[in-house]
Amino acid sequence: METSYQPTDRTTPTRYRERARYDRETVHSILDEALICHLGYIGAGRPVVLPTTHARLGETLYLHGSTGSGPMLAAKEAPSGLPVCVTATLVDALVLGRSALHHSLAYRSVVVVGDARLVEDPAEKLRALHCLLDHIAFGRAADCRTPNERELAKTAVLALDLVEVSAKVRDGGLVDDPEDLGLPHWAGILPLSLTAGTPVPAGDLDPTTPVPGYLTSYSR
Amino acid sequence: METSYQPTDRTTPTRYRERARYDRETVHSILDEALICHLGYIGAGRPVVLPTTHARLGETLYLHGSTGSGPMLAAKEAPSGLPVCVTATLVDALVLGRSALHHSLAYRSVVVVGDARLVEDPAEKLRALHCLLDHIAFGRAADCRTPNERELAKTAVLALDLVEVSAKVRDGGLVDDPEDLGLPHWAGILPLSLTAGTPVPAGDLDPTTPVPGYLTSYSR
Repeated sequence: METSYQPTDRTTPTRYRERARYDRETVHSILDEALICHLGYIGAGRPVVLPTTHARLGETLYLHGSTGSGPMLAAKEAPSGLPVCVTATLVDALVLGRSALHHSLAYRSVVVVGDARLVEDPAEKLRALHCLLDHIAFGRAADCRTPNERELAKTAVLALDLVEVSAKVRDGGLVDDPEDLGLPHWAGILPLSLTAGTPVPAGDLDPTTPVPGYLTSYSR
Repeated sequence: METSYQPTDRTTPTRYRERARYDRETVHSILDEALICHLGYIGAGRPVVLPTTHARLGETLYLHGSTGSGPMLAAKEAPSGLPVCVTATLVDALVLGRSALHHSLAYRSVVVVGDARLVEDPAEKLRALHCLLDHIAFGRAADCRTPNERELAKTAVLALDLVEVSAKVRDGGLVDDPEDLGLPHWAGILPLSLTAGTPVPAGDLDPTTPVPGYLTSYSR
């Protein structure tokens, strides 16, 4: 397998092309780190963007939903695949220059375009759900009750092959205009991260149940 | 002004309708807290979703871009407005039930649909850029060099009226099935938040420049 995705017109940004990345390693790491993504599709002729959870298994991206949700209903009516754009974004820092124009965010994002299919095969759906659980907390899939047939039927999963894919990486680099360097404004970056607090047990949990390691040392 | 937005077919979710909120207070607070949003539009007949920064000024949502970017070019060719869907999502916690089916995220999201217009008036554009700066760090607009005419011309801003708007709020509530309560798996929530690290000054910053208060006590 090639180490990079092949750029296409749709995955070539019109601006800041030097920030585009197509290597699988970068793309995979962003998709795996991002807790959620935003799924775009066309509903009744208009764009629709909804947040959802996702998980990557090799070169397939699985998206979680429920059978009655808009995108899942739309996918059901699109047997050859629902045209989608899935975008996952990690914000790493505020970048603050001395001038308004040189303000930015440091971020890493992935855009996947393609035609998503509803996962119909129960074995694939179960495998996808395991990945979706491990995506939110690695190790959780093996540490909860597996869905039964009735529960599986209530859950819908979309699959999207990672073929037309691009990443965009904007680091914390900051270059002010030479004439602004003497201005009194602070300049630099403010790092940001998604951090976990202390796990809060359910009210009906046996208090002797230990907090699993994948939660006490949670990081993305 | 009404305290709530009027629900429409497009802003009524097909699932979990009890999580929908239309009051302006909830919608505004989510838009204001979310650092970025995801902008969806139709490009060459396909959905496109891109991350961008936004800021709310009253009942107008401004979206930041550069003049050569995809959505800004599309908006230029849509004098009556570019059909968009703008979604901002805050993830508050992982929700971990004893069964796979009862896993979820606690989140708050806003979906705005409408036809976005390019901001042409320089005074409105400047005002929007001030809001966009204050959105990423409140107080920054007054603490940096204002854009000059050339810089203003390089920046594009989309405006979207907050008319068709809905929020969705899923709290950390967790209800396991009675027959699962005896299972040995930990259940509860893991709170998540976007947190700021220590500001990192630019290499060329005068080291006596104090770090502004809006960064030392940054929170969203």
